Amino acid sequence: MELDKPYYAVIFSSLRTEGDDGYGQMAQEMEELAQQQPGFLGVESARDGLGITVSYWESLEAIANWKANMDHRQAQRNGIKKWYSWYKVRICRVEREYEFNK
Amino acid sequence: MELDKPYYAVIFSSLRTEGDDGYGQMAQEMEELAQQQPGFLGVESARDGLGITVSYWESLEAIANWKANMDHRQAQRNGIKKWYSWYKVRICRVEREYEFNK
Repeated sequence: MELDKPYYAVIFSSLRTEGDDGYGQMAQEMEELAQQQPGFLGVESARDGLGITVSYWESLEAIANWKANMDHRQAQRNGIKKWYSWYKVRICRVEREYEFNK
Repeated sequence: MELDKPYYAVIFSSLRTEGDDGYGQMAQEMEELAQQQPGFLGVESARDGLGITVSYWESLEAIANWKANMDHRQAQRNGIKKWYSWYKVRICRVEREYEFNK
């Protein structure tokens, strides 16, 4: 199905360091904060060893604003310092989608 | 970082039905089969309740060929019949990416 209006996905793939060290609380706070941002459409998350979080946004501008958010920037710094041994961020334009519902 | 050459991501988000019913074997076979397809670049997968599998491809044509692959089509039919209560597929163009490595 072609989209009437394209939107954007941020694919955040990551490997965690050992221990929690405030990670769980931060992750919950960042998800709540993301949901309050203009242009936020939704988020999906899973982890078993590798973690994948995909957030969906109306525009590249909305993504840039979220990346620049001060509380989020602090979380990004701690992510590099403490919580992640590796991550990769991919910013994508959603071209098509389809869904199955039983 | 801007990409020299854009590539594509297929985000497959899913909820499983109860029980295995051949799912584990199929999932492994499909991952091995995908890796043999022309234009396949990689795959990342995680599940805890919600499952997210993201596969990466050189072109939309490579994705269309993989979708049309006969063994994969059989797996898709069984997916609808047996393994998934819900799924959503998003086909995306990767616009930018960056990586952190400790």
